[in-house]
Amino acid sequence: MVRMTQLRFALAQIDTCVGDIHANAKAIINNVRQAATQDANVVVFPEMTLTGYPVEDLALRATFRREAWDIANNVAEQLQAEGYGSLYVVCGTIGTDPDEEKPRNRLVVFHEGVVWAGYDKHFLPNYGVFDENRIFSAGDKALVLDVDGVRLGFAICEDLWRDGLPISELEHEQIDTLVTINASPYEEGKRHVRYALAASRAKQVNAPLIYVNQVGGQDDLVFDGGSFVIDQQGTLLQRSDTFVESLDYFDFDSQKNEQTVSTIAAERSSDEEVYVACVLGLRDYMRKNHFTGVCLGLSGGIDSALVATMAADACGGENIWGISMPSMYSSDGSKDDAYDLAQNLHAHYEVQAIEPIFNTYQNQLHLSGIAQENIQARIRGVIVMAYSNSHNLLALATGNKSELACGYSTIYGDAVGGYAPIKDVFKTRVWELSRWRNNIAQQGVGVGQLRMVGSENIEPSGESSVLIPVNSIVKAPSAELRPDQKDSDSLPEYEFLDKVLAAYIEHAHGRADLLADGFDEKTVDTVMRLVDRAEWKRRQYPLGPKVSSLAFGRDRRLPITNAFKE
Amino acid sequence: MVRMTQLRFALAQIDTCVGDIHANAKAIINNVRQAATQDANVVVFPEMTLTGYPVEDLALRATFRREAWDIANNVAEQLQAEGYGSLYVVCGTIGTDPDEEKPRNRLVVFHEGVVWAGYDKHFLPNYGVFDENRIFSAGDKALVLDVDGVRLGFAICEDLWRDGLPISELEHEQIDTLVTINASPYEEGKRHVRYALAASRAKQVNAPLIYVNQVGGQDDLVFDGGSFVIDQQGTLLQRSDTFVESLDYFDFDSQKNEQTVSTIAAERSSDEEVYVACVLGLRDYMRKNHFTGVCLGLSGGIDSALVATMAADACGGENIWGISMPSMYSSDGSKDDAYDLAQNLHAHYEVQAIEPIFNTYQNQLHLSGIAQENIQARIRGVIVMAYSNSHNLLALATGNKSELACGYSTIYGDAVGGYAPIKDVFKTRVWELSRWRNNIAQQGVGVGQLRMVGSENIEPSGESSVLIPVNSIVKAPSAELRPDQKDSDSLPEYEFLDKVLAAYIEHAHGRADLLADGFDEKTVDTVMRLVDRAEWKRRQYPLGPKVSSLAFGRDRRLPITNAFKE
Repeated sequence: MVRMTQLRFALAQIDTCVGDIHANAKAIINNVRQAATQDANVVVFPEMTLTGYPVEDLALRATFRREAWDIANNVAEQLQAEGYGSLYVVCGTIGTDPDEEKPRNRLVVFHEGVVWAGYDKHFLPNYGVFDENRIFSAGDKALVLDVDGVRLGFAICEDLWRDGLPISELEHEQIDTLVTINASPYEEGKRHVRYALAASRAKQVNAPLIYVNQVGGQDDLVFDGGSFVIDQQGTLLQRSDTFVESLDYFDFDSQKNEQTVSTIAAERSSDEEVYVACVLGLRDYMRKNHFTGVCLGLSGGIDSALVATMAADACGGENIWGISMPSMYSSDGSKDDAYDLAQNLHAHYEVQAIEPIFNTYQNQLHLSGIAQENIQARIRGVIVMAYSNSHNLLALATGNKSELACGYSTIYGDAVGGYAPIKDVFKTRVWELSRWRNNIAQQGVGVGQLRMVGSENIEPSGESSVLIPVNSIVKAPSAELRPDQKDSDSLPEYEFLDKVLAAYIEHAHGRADLLADGFDEKTVDTVMRLVDRAEWKRRQYPLGPKVSSLAFGRDRRLPITNAFKE
Repeated sequence: MVRMTQLRFALAQIDTCVGDIHANAKAIINNVRQAATQDANVVVFPEMTLTGYPVEDLALRATFRREAWDIANNVAEQLQAEGYGSLYVVCGTIGTDPDEEKPRNRLVVFHEGVVWAGYDKHFLPNYGVFDENRIFSAGDKALVLDVDGVRLGFAICEDLWRDGLPISELEHEQIDTLVTINASPYEEGKRHVRYALAASRAKQVNAPLIYVNQVGGQDDLVFDGGSFVIDQQGTLLQRSDTFVESLDYFDFDSQKNEQTVSTIAAERSSDEEVYVACVLGLRDYMRKNHFTGVCLGLSGGIDSALVATMAADACGGENIWGISMPSMYSSDGSKDDAYDLAQNLHAHYEVQAIEPIFNTYQNQLHLSGIAQENIQARIRGVIVMAYSNSHNLLALATGNKSELACGYSTIYGDAVGGYAPIKDVFKTRVWELSRWRNNIAQQGVGVGQLRMVGSENIEPSGESSVLIPVNSIVKAPSAELRPDQKDSDSLPEYEFLDKVLAAYIEHAHGRADLLADGFDEKTVDTVMRLVDRAEWKRRQYPLGPKVSSLAFGRDRRLPITNAFKE
């Protein structure tokens, strides 16, 4: 056989849906067709392309693994039947270890109408949001494939992050390219860690590394895409856009010492990343669960304003039901701000005063104090859910991470909903994101004109507009559940609070560590007590997208019954 | 040294609290004092005694591990100071692997004022409700301890369940007794699996096996105790009672080929086990989270009747606020049954009609269909939470496993609460447990007179009484949210439904398997659709005790966004 010197790789960064094996298979075939028109030789998809990722305990269902296997074979056959048998198509799916009867996280290569080769993930992540030891057993064999004379090595996601197999074996295999398939969820700042890691692995195997990542939302995770190729000198040879589906190409020439640099998509600012991650999380949750519209309470405050704006970017203002639910303690300013916001977003706007209902409850129950405050929030929750039930709308909870941390919300009140877009965004960041969104709106990026999955081809209109009323951003935060209430009556100032929370939650600092961090004892004790006591509420809080290094939910698993106070 | 022939082991089956290291240490010392009065030489406590179990991500907090270590040393010193230094005290705690900086699940032996010896758990369970690979690294050294001439081997819980270290090493160590510390959660039927397993390990190491298990509730787990000693012939030499704290003794004599049989506690019936597990789960959740009373809606139906009765057994009828919340669709029979129940339990009984509040909502919102049904349930939820807030009561959700499976409940309505005592009990079992509880009440076991942690010394009064009105047991189940509504309008009959649910949920049978099980296609499709669509509601449902082989919650982790239908 003549040793070929050139190979064209297609990086198919697609948005799959967990469990929708037929649709995912279709997306694979469509992308191969497209790549074939561009003369690709190897088409690379993300980790667990066929099944979606993460499949969680669905992996344990035998019928699920059988169907995935049958469809994998069908795809191989169909590609051959359509004349693409000579291509090598690399994608992820679920397999089974025949000995242990345990599932495997598997990479397969379709070629000549069959599953030509396979590789099972060796390192199974079991920290943070990952539970792969629960559902998979580990593979123990490396795979090197000779593709028309070019030697390809393979790895799956976590295999890159740990020393040992398969990389340590591929190191001695004189491979020409290391192909990796990934489902690496977004968190702020993680992308640069990926580049550094990939460069070191490229150096280790002395070959360029292709990193194809999943894109899109799945429950509380958002995959940011941003697939890339990096060489052993750490030079970025190709980079796909983030948060969009894409099919990009990388040309490998074994005659060259240095490969040609292909397209390099521009980076986004960190505010844009976090904002778009929240919107894409919501958008994909809606699409994959068949919702076309949302409803939420509009208080005139910044949290509901930001969530409504994100929702408008996700599904269009006309699909939003914004409900203003003023009480006797609501300021006129708040009502005006809610109205202005709905106008700016072109959202449905309805007013439902809660006082008549509150009075009826009160006549019967004679509540006071916290019970009286909570009942106002709960009447609002009931109204939001009535809209959800009546119009088949996804109810959105508008709590931010600072509130969620401190339990500064009413369970079954403002906490109701199927999705909580900003639950992993601290309050100070809520203000920053609001300012950022207003800024780009003024520069002409209107509602729904963000670049992400589902709106890649929508051009910004260029018309300057305001989305979030400035007053919602600048006024002092208040729950407005009693006269002249301010958040700062119950909580430290957010600028300070968010720093303590970041240390306690995201860095798992205990009491002694927090004091060593320089926080005062009173604040530390208050914050720790609030956070620990609110665990039961967080367990019942809706899903929302992880955007930080440590989100509430499956990323941070603490007992509710927990007497530890240090 | 003269080889001793006799050792007295104390099996200290105690109820610890996660994170309450000081209180757990105190319980250890108290039990050692008591055991010393009975001339015990070795006192054995459950797995992770000092920290409580499971600690989840608390393990990752450095201050937590430091405090546990400091207190372990203090306990050793205090025992010595009190004159118990010659005893060997075996208990569980958290350690740290110095190389990886990862926590370890550790067994320590206190002797002569120090931590005399240690052993780190080798097999880390990471299935079902367990996540130990997430937080621990595995130990790799076996421990054999010479106690005055008697050779003791050690293992921690999961080490027994898998072939390999440490048992495979102890096999060749000619040990005299295998001491194991455990935190094995209750599920129906599991105890006999433990006996069989322990007997096979005793045979393997050719020595009697001591199995000390934790007792008590921790969030969604209930530990059933039932510690025991079994020999290499499979003879039970000792058995402690289940669901109570106990300090029992086993005398080992190395001169004897067959050891003397000690106390063997009586077995409980399976209905009693499940019922007591639910009550203890609730009781310990209340005690460890500082609740003294509960509130719940009393509909006159069987679910709320059973939950109220369990609550009365957990905290006494006088600490229960039962709220009857009739609507225009409530039958007189239902109201009477709710009243009778409260009388039987000596519970507070309050009536809050929901019609006035319903009418106020309706005048404003003009709801119909499911939205109108749900709002009734949600008004009740708001009222229950108002009682909870006003009187600092734990609100109880009364849903059973069949409802939870099918989503046959109103989120933020009847689903509100901090604890859900029967969430892992199918409807048909709810009836069985109700009949069982009434039976023993008629035999003289009144409210609060069950044998379990916190009521070991309460004697049944012997007075015959009825607790649950017979009508609540025999009438057709109805949500009473519209005229003449019956559960069977929306769901298959429970006798049949529960069988399908058991196959789909507890045995993870897919569609093809269910059809092969003999269930008809229409039912299978209906049930699978209902169960899958209700996942989002279950995520927001309160905690409740696991009593079956597979409970909802951390035992069954499925994505909400999940298109798989087979």
